[in-house]
Amino acid sequence: MVNVKAGLSKQYNRLFEIVPPAAIRAVDIKLSAIPDIIRLTIGEPDFAVPMPVKEAVKTAIDNDDSHYAPAKGLLPLRQAISTYVHERFSTPVYDPESEIAVTIGASEAIYDALSALFNRGETILVPTPTFCFYQAEALRLGLNVVEINTAPNYLFTAEMFKQAMADHPEAKGLILNYPGNPTGVTYPEETLKELAQVIDQTDVLVMSDEIYGELTYGRQHKSISAYIPEQTIFISGLSKSHAMTGYRVGFIAGPAALMKMVCLAHSGVVTTAPTPMMDGALAALTVAKDAPAAMRDVYHQRRDLVLAGLAEAGFSAPKPEGAFYIFATIPDFLNQNDEEFVYELGEQAGVGAIPGTVFGDGGQGHIRISYAASTEDLTEAMRRLVAFSQAARAEQKQAQA
Amino acid sequence: MVNVKAGLSKQYNRLFEIVPPAAIRAVDIKLSAIPDIIRLTIGEPDFAVPMPVKEAVKTAIDNDDSHYAPAKGLLPLRQAISTYVHERFSTPVYDPESEIAVTIGASEAIYDALSALFNRGETILVPTPTFCFYQAEALRLGLNVVEINTAPNYLFTAEMFKQAMADHPEAKGLILNYPGNPTGVTYPEETLKELAQVIDQTDVLVMSDEIYGELTYGRQHKSISAYIPEQTIFISGLSKSHAMTGYRVGFIAGPAALMKMVCLAHSGVVTTAPTPMMDGALAALTVAKDAPAAMRDVYHQRRDLVLAGLAEAGFSAPKPEGAFYIFATIPDFLNQNDEEFVYELGEQAGVGAIPGTVFGDGGQGHIRISYAASTEDLTEAMRRLVAFSQAARAEQKQAQA
Repeated sequence: MVNVKAGLSKQYNRLFEIVPPAAIRAVDIKLSAIPDIIRLTIGEPDFAVPMPVKEAVKTAIDNDDSHYAPAKGLLPLRQAISTYVHERFSTPVYDPESEIAVTIGASEAIYDALSALFNRGETILVPTPTFCFYQAEALRLGLNVVEINTAPNYLFTAEMFKQAMADHPEAKGLILNYPGNPTGVTYPEETLKELAQVIDQTDVLVMSDEIYGELTYGRQHKSISAYIPEQTIFISGLSKSHAMTGYRVGFIAGPAALMKMVCLAHSGVVTTAPTPMMDGALAALTVAKDAPAAMRDVYHQRRDLVLAGLAEAGFSAPKPEGAFYIFATIPDFLNQNDEEFVYELGEQAGVGAIPGTVFGDGGQGHIRISYAASTEDLTEAMRRLVAFSQAARAEQKQAQA
Repeated sequence: MVNVKAGLSKQYNRLFEIVPPAAIRAVDIKLSAIPDIIRLTIGEPDFAVPMPVKEAVKTAIDNDDSHYAPAKGLLPLRQAISTYVHERFSTPVYDPESEIAVTIGASEAIYDALSALFNRGETILVPTPTFCFYQAEALRLGLNVVEINTAPNYLFTAEMFKQAMADHPEAKGLILNYPGNPTGVTYPEETLKELAQVIDQTDVLVMSDEIYGELTYGRQHKSISAYIPEQTIFISGLSKSHAMTGYRVGFIAGPAALMKMVCLAHSGVVTTAPTPMMDGALAALTVAKDAPAAMRDVYHQRRDLVLAGLAEAGFSAPKPEGAFYIFATIPDFLNQNDEEFVYELGEQAGVGAIPGTVFGDGGQGHIRISYAASTEDLTEAMRRLVAFSQAARAEQKQAQA
C-alpha cells in the first residue's frame, strides 16, 4: 500500500469529479455480496463463444500471429465488417481502408468518437433512459450533455428532435442507442426514417450505437446510417451478438474525413486491438455469421418468460423488441424509490436488478432486468419476484384492513 | 465510400489538429513500399510468444473464460503483477485491489494517466529525445508540453530537473522512459537516486514508463518508484519483455488515491482488457517469468553486431545499456538532414530507419535503428549500410580531388 504525497492528493482532472464511478457495476458489486442472489444485473450473455471463433483465436496463437496489427485493425477483418454491416444492417458500403476501425469493444468506439469529434463545451443530445456510459464519458471530456426524457414510449421521435433543437440550437451531436439499453425498445422503420429526415435538415452528428442490432425479435434491424450516412458514426461490436464480451472486439465506421480523426484517437489510446482476437472476430463475421440467430431464439423465449413473471408480480413494462433487457415500472404497492428498492429486492427476494435512475431522466421508479441469464435462473428469479410481490401486497392489504 | 456532410467537415476536436499522425508508423509505412528493404524501424520483437503463455490463452479459450473481467483486470493477474514488479524492479508492494490496473498495452496506461491526472493547460516536462507518443497524447489532451533536450548523454539529471523547475515552476508532471526509446540509455543507480531526491522536494508527479525494464545489459533495472513511491505512477507491460506486442497487455500502478482516478479513465475508455489475454499474462509473470532472459542474451549479441556495423560505416552512437534501439549520429559525409536521409538510406541501401527528429528536441541529425530484428537481417543490413557509406565517402573524396 502506497500513500500519495500530501501535495498530490488533489492532482487529478477536475472533470472526473462530476461523474460517479460506473453505477451499474457499483450496484452489481454491492448486490453480489448477498448470498444466493440471482443477478439479472449485467448485460452479459451466458452463452459460450461460437466454436469457429474459438478455433480461429487458437489457430492465430499457434501460428504466432502475435505481432502488432495495423492501427485500424487487420485489413481482412475490416473488409468483413464492411460487408457484414451492409448486408445485415443496411449501412452504406464503408471503405475498409479509410472508413472502419476495430476497437476495444463498443466502449472504446464511443470514447474515440466523443474525444475526437467534439470540442470541450459543445453540446450533445442524449435521449434517456439510456446506457449511463454515454453521459459519463461525455461529461469527463468536458462536453455539455442535454438529456431528453423519452418516457413512456422510449423512442426519440422526429418531434422530440425538433423540440430539442429549438431548445438547444447549439447542439452538435446526438447519441442514439437502439435496440436500446435499458428499455429493449427499437425503432419501427417509419419512425426511424422520419427521425433521419429531420436530422438531415441539420448538421448534427449522430453517433449510433447499434450493438444490439443482431438481437431483434420479429424484425430486421436497420441502421440510421442507411438514411443519413454523411452525418452518422456507426458503432457496433461482437460482445452481444456473438457472446464475446471478454474478447473485447468492437468497431466504428463513418465518413473518411471524420474517421481520420477517430483513428487518431484510437491509435493514441490503445495503439491497436489484440491481433488474435481480431482473427476470432473475422471468423465470427464469416463462418460464424449465423451464430446470433440461435441465441436470439433463446433470448426471445426468455423475454416472454420474464414478461409473464413481471406481469404476475404487478410490474408493467413495454414489450421489448430487441436487446435483452426489460425496463419495468415498480408497482405502487412496492417501494417506488428504485435506488432503495433494488436493495430490498436483493436482500428480501434474492433477485438482483439495476435501478432505473442510473439510466438518466425518465428512469426513476423503474428497474432494469437483464434476461441474458440462463433460463433456469430466470425461472427461479421470477418465482421469487412473484412471491415477494404477493407477500408485499398481502401485507399492505392487511395494514389497510 | 461515404462523403461527409459539408457542414460537418470541420466537426472535430481542434486539439487534434496540432499533432501529426503517429510519425514512426508513417515513416515505416512509406519505407515498406521499397522492394527488398530491411526494416529496422519498428520496436517489435521478432521472437514468438513463450509457449506457456500461448498455452494459457488457449486453455482460457477452451474453458470459456470469455466473460467480462473486473474493470481493473483479473485479480490473480494483479496479484502476480504486484509480486513481479516488486521482485524484479524494486517497486513498492502495490495493493492488487486498489493500486494496479491491467491496460491495453502501456499505451493505454500512459493515456489513462495523462487524461485522469492532469487538467487542461497544466504543464508536463518531457525529456527528449523520447518516444513521440507522449507528446502527441499530452497535446491532444490540451496539456502544455515542455521538451527538455538531454543530448548528448540522454540522461535527465537532477541538475536538468532543477533547471526545468526554475524555468517552469508551474510544472505538474514529468514523463520518464528508461531504458529509453530511442536511445537505449538507462540510469546508473546513483544518477537515478539523485534525480529522485530533487523530485522528492517538489510535488511533481512522475509517470515512469519502464516497459524496457527487462531488457538491460549488464545491470538490473530499478524503478524510480523505489525512491519516490508517493509521487510515481509506474507503467510497464509485456509487449517487449515477452514479445507479446499483439496481445496488448500493459499495466499501471501507483498510490490508491491517484489510481482511483486512473481506473475511472480506464474503465471509461475500454471497460476492461480481454480476459483470455489476461490469463496469458498471468502465465508470463509466473511460469514464464524467466523467458525474457533468453531473449535478452540474443538482443545483447545483436546490439554488439549493430554497433560494430555502425562504427564501420562512420556513425557514432552511445552504447545502449537497455531496450533494443541504437540512436546514431549521421556522419558529416552523409546527408545530415535525418528526415531526408532515411529515405535516401531506404532507396539507395535498402535499409529502413526512423529519423531522429520525430523523437523531439535533440533528435535532429540522428537515426534510430531497432535491433529487435533477426540476426540474419541485421547482418545483411549492416553489410548494406557499410557499403552505402563507403560509396558515399569515396564519391565525396573524388569530388574534393
